[in-house]
Amino acid sequence: MATTVEIRRKPAPFDGYHRKQTAEPDMSLCGVGRGTPGGEYLRRFWHPVAYLSELGELPLRVRALGEDLVAFRDGRGEVGVLHMRCCHRNTSLEYGIIEPRGIRCCYHGRLFDTDGTVLEIPGEPAEERMKASVSQGGYPTHVFAGIVFIYMGPPERIPVFPHLDRFDVPNVSLVPGVRLNLECNWVQIKENVLDPHHTNFLHTIPQRRGMQHFADEFESSVHFTFLEMPGGLAYMGSRKVRDNIWVRSAESYGANIHCISSIFENGHVPKAATAPFLTFWTLPVDDAVSVNFFISHVSENENMPFEKRRELEIFGQNDDRPYAERQFLPGDHDAQVGQGPINVHATEHLGSHDRGVTLFRQGIAAVERGEDPKGFYMKQEDVPPTFASDRVVPIAEVQGDPDDAKTVIAFAEKVGKDYLTEPPISVLKRDLGT
Amino acid sequence: MATTVEIRRKPAPFDGYHRKQTAEPDMSLCGVGRGTPGGEYLRRFWHPVAYLSELGELPLRVRALGEDLVAFRDGRGEVGVLHMRCCHRNTSLEYGIIEPRGIRCCYHGRLFDTDGTVLEIPGEPAEERMKASVSQGGYPTHVFAGIVFIYMGPPERIPVFPHLDRFDVPNVSLVPGVRLNLECNWVQIKENVLDPHHTNFLHTIPQRRGMQHFADEFESSVHFTFLEMPGGLAYMGSRKVRDNIWVRSAESYGANIHCISSIFENGHVPKAATAPFLTFWTLPVDDAVSVNFFISHVSENENMPFEKRRELEIFGQNDDRPYAERQFLPGDHDAQVGQGPINVHATEHLGSHDRGVTLFRQGIAAVERGEDPKGFYMKQEDVPPTFASDRVVPIAEVQGDPDDAKTVIAFAEKVGKDYLTEPPISVLKRDLGT
Amino acid sequence: MATTVEIRRKPAPFDGYHRKQTAEPDMSLCGVGRGTPGGEYLRRFWHPVAYLSELGELPLRVRALGEDLVAFRDGRGEVGVLHMRCCHRNTSLEYGIIEPRGIRCCYHGRLFDTDGTVLEIPGEPAEERMKASVSQGGYPTHVFAGIVFIYMGPPERIPVFPHLDRFDVPNVSLVPGVRLNLECNWVQIKENVLDPHHTNFLHTIPQRRGMQHFADEFESSVHFTFLEMPGGLAYMGSRKVRDNIWVRSAESYGANIHCISSIFENGHVPKAATAPFLTFWTLPVDDAVSVNFFISHVSENENMPFEKRRELEIFGQNDDRPYAERQFLPGDHDAQVGQGPINVHATEHLGSHDRGVTLFRQGIAAVERGEDPKGFYMKQEDVPPTFASDRVVPIAEVQGDPDDAKTVIAFAEKVGKDYLTEPPISVLKRDLGT
Repeated sequence: MATTVEIRRKPAPFDGYHRKQTAEPDMSLCGVGRGTPGGEYLRRFWHPVAYLSELGELPLRVRALGEDLVAFRDGRGEVGVLHMRCCHRNTSLEYGIIEPRGIRCCYHGRLFDTDGTVLEIPGEPAEERMKASVSQGGYPTHVFAGIVFIYMGPPERIPVFPHLDRFDVPNVSLVPGVRLNLECNWVQIKENVLDPHHTNFLHTIPQRRGMQHFADEFESSVHFTFLEMPGGLAYMGSRKVRDNIWVRSAESYGANIHCISSIFENGHVPKAATAPFLTFWTLPVDDAVSVNFFISHVSENENMPFEKRRELEIFGQNDDRPYAERQFLPGDHDAQVGQGPINVHATEHLGSHDRGVTLFRQGIAAVERGEDPKGFYMKQEDVPPTFASDRVVPIAEVQGDPDDAKTVIAFAEKVGKDYLTEPPISVLKRDLGT
Repeated sequence: MATTVEIRRKPAPFDGYHRKQTAEPDMSLCGVGRGTPGGEYLRRFWHPVAYLSELGELPLRVRALGEDLVAFRDGRGEVGVLHMRCCHRNTSLEYGIIEPRGIRCCYHGRLFDTDGTVLEIPGEPAEERMKASVSQGGYPTHVFAGIVFIYMGPPERIPVFPHLDRFDVPNVSLVPGVRLNLECNWVQIKENVLDPHHTNFLHTIPQRRGMQHFADEFESSVHFTFLEMPGGLAYMGSRKVRDNIWVRSAESYGANIHCISSIFENGHVPKAATAPFLTFWTLPVDDAVSVNFFISHVSENENMPFEKRRELEIFGQNDDRPYAERQFLPGDHDAQVGQGPINVHATEHLGSHDRGVTLFRQGIAAVERGEDPKGFYMKQEDVPPTFASDRVVPIAEVQGDPDDAKTVIAFAEKVGKDYLTEPPISVLKRDLGT
Repeated sequence: MATTVEIRRKPAPFDGYHRKQTAEPDMSLCGVGRGTPGGEYLRRFWHPVAYLSELGELPLRVRALGEDLVAFRDGRGEVGVLHMRCCHRNTSLEYGIIEPRGIRCCYHGRLFDTDGTVLEIPGEPAEERMKASVSQGGYPTHVFAGIVFIYMGPPERIPVFPHLDRFDVPNVSLVPGVRLNLECNWVQIKENVLDPHHTNFLHTIPQRRGMQHFADEFESSVHFTFLEMPGGLAYMGSRKVRDNIWVRSAESYGANIHCISSIFENGHVPKAATAPFLTFWTLPVDDAVSVNFFISHVSENENMPFEKRRELEIFGQNDDRPYAERQFLPGDHDAQVGQGPINVHATEHLGSHDRGVTLFRQGIAAVERGEDPKGFYMKQEDVPPTFASDRVVPIAEVQGDPDDAKTVIAFAEKVGKDYLTEPPISVLKRDLGT
């Protein structure tokens, strides 16, 4: 209701009256709908829509990129993800009947294959002619590690589902996660992943308030380095811990894949690479709602019981905690949703550590020019390696003063360069003797 | 948020990206507000707003055709339905005090008669002058079979409340029903009634999934015939059942009356006409919400206990079942509400059996031309008979091959023509010897 | 959805079709946002946002004049009220950490003083330069009688918090109240306070329905007089009670202060002045939501136990009663919220007793001209006295026929004039010998 009032001035105490009061979000970046720049960019990638375990006897209503969909697994075991409203009279297929092959609308019995092809139009004299003229909108599906993915873009440019190097590490199994619901725009999640700075503030609040969460060492002073990698953008967070320099990297890969290293690493013991910890995919549900789907990479020799690990890895990531608890022990969910349904960049005041939207802004521009965006691959052999890992090196091996920021940052940049020659997963496999 | 993207093309597998993504509903048809074409059409008819049993000690807030109203029965037993907001300061009369005559606003005590006339303005020196210059908006009421109806159109063209022939059948009593709430536009309900096709698919799902609901014979192959009748549009659903041809008709009468025959009829025994089963009136609450009010026609000699019948006749018609149950055993409510708050006709792909909106489209056009619509009567003697019934005839009496669609449809058309000469209720009364 | 239909005509029975159906509220009066006429007017006054008792270990999210804010008390005991979204990345400070000095954002640890000054930007190399270029929007605070007030207007024209004469009455203590939530525009509350007429109708319903609330004498015939006073607008409600004339006054002071006399006074015993009973401040939360904050003035020698008094003084003022109870025993909350989220003045039909919006309409006009509005004071010595009280005088002392309206009104006007010479609180103190 309020008119936007813009007044720029030097800061003064009690300056609320002179601060910009409202502004609109940048929907060309944040919008996820068909026909918008951001929406067309997103439609060049595979998106998670459900865990396979959610597909049972009844159809599952889902929403992705602002579209209402229904997901199901038919009698053959084929997974279908179709437009929710039946192409006949628009009744929702969430009330449909799952058949040996395909799904049937509850209202008049039209039967659709998992690809949207019309198989039957009961009681219709002109059945064959009508079947040739209409289909139910549907999307190609791919099931990986217990997660159902769909591709919602132009069928003539369907990319390969990127099977990452970190999915194939010996003695590490992939365990599907749970839905992590966030009532905010997907860009806020993206920016959180590309924001190393918050890990040593937000994620250390639980420790400071008496709860075990991330390793304590996350709180120690850290230097950040951003690196463009073949598949996306990585950051290096580098610290001196005891007699080591610990370089932790995380990577945003393609439009919606996020590679995370262990939150329990403490940098005490030198190592060349660590096993993957989490991979998560962010689904933009619509302009103001998102869901993270994830897999845990679980090593055979983990010390922590899996139930405990799962509890800690989802702590603060979901909408299911009481408000007062979220106030006292806030997590990523609360910081991101706390920016509002769609964050208004125009009212931000960024510091040196804030980067990150550049990567997908470039991708949006590419799609608008009619090109494929960065992180888009038509063949599996083109899919580049990933770069999220931990490297811990004795100070003796680092040139320069280990208490000087320049030394630490220079070392992190060197690690990034070395990764381009031998990616962390290759290092890890070599160390494992595989 | 999403831009509407329109792409017409031949169907292909996984064609979701190329399907039209969004479109707006046709509000000139679906809109119910004052001053809209559909809203003015609807304002030429009597609408149900409450069951008489709902009017007790406190005023009842109701909503009809997008208007907030308050319904009450005063000390004289007179029913009033007035604009909800007091004409003085707009306070809601739902907090008003029901008086021996009329209703009094809680705020400053203005007293209104059931017709909206101002009876008292407490403490006002200029009381008589003000009473002559203002009234509370109100509508004429009519109570029938325990249901309160109002007429919201121009007072100079008030129609008769249509007392239908099917209300006066010997040994058949009228029992008021319950509110059936539907979170969708009224046109979806209208189309459902004029859609015979769904009865042999949607309504046979419960049987196929192990629950007794409609007679099993509804599932058998059926042929449909649409007939314009004096008061509205009737459809005939015709089947061969055992050694008979069973012709079942239902009728949409005027703007909002729906005449339904028994859902337990099975066509096993020849008969010329059956007693009425249900009559229901659809109230457009606002653009995206409707309520069905109904009466059960209960014969003296019914076999089924009334409680059981009532359970089966409202099964699937209301919003009160758990989501998973509605998914497994969907009913009319779920199919209609599943089309969305206001169905978008532009994204439908109709078949041969889809008709029905034509009738009220004609009515809307008539009102826009300044004429009375079809189904509008100023005198009771002009009210035509109704045509919902079952006729079961031995195959021997039908000319042609009873397994050929043409034979069955021709016979149904003949039954329709015969009904025009002798309507089913007349046949029934004659058979009953009355 | 409905088109506005405007038809003016003489009243007739059942005139609903011809009544204006919809209209828009007057947002230049009702709007509370920054940059709107009403919103700028409101920003010239102190507004309550929380009870001090609500500020504990965790930040408190509040909303005032359409702005999201966070209120807290830091380790020094200083109260801060800042814009809710952190000026860095817009994360909500409701998840912030209250520090010994100021509040720290949960996301990246920026620390803000209670006046919005940036105290720390952790990990930022350019910290000093950034601190000099940005601040968190904040507002000056004032704590009085357990209530936190803020001033949201231009810092160069900050008014004094008006310390009223009625706050300093010997042997009368001030007890903070509770939040009274009203889901409606603030103007409806304003008009209710300036509407003496409803007290002898709305507030006598509980009595007539068997519950003790206001004194019975409120129901007796009353005459009303409106008087412009130095700080606002007062009304006098004058009645003959037994052998006395009882003149009760209430005052709307400045933009949002309301002075109320006892609801238990009955006019039986002559007196020159009564102690204050309630003072409440109306906070416009946003265009369609308001909260009343109040203090009870509690005399040492009150008969009624405080718990009972508190129960009766908040009866009907809040949103916490069941709907049916509110229908049967409506209170101010129900009458005001019953006018809708934002009352539409265009559909009202006022009587002789309806006044009151004039005062703040004048104030809005003044602010639009660049002037200070009525009720705005830069110095405490300019703050005028208040005029809410009861005066009860034996009929023998009143000139004229005490049963004639003119006599009673003339006497009330004389009381008002006397108050200008010696305000009620002065009279009271004199009588108390202080």
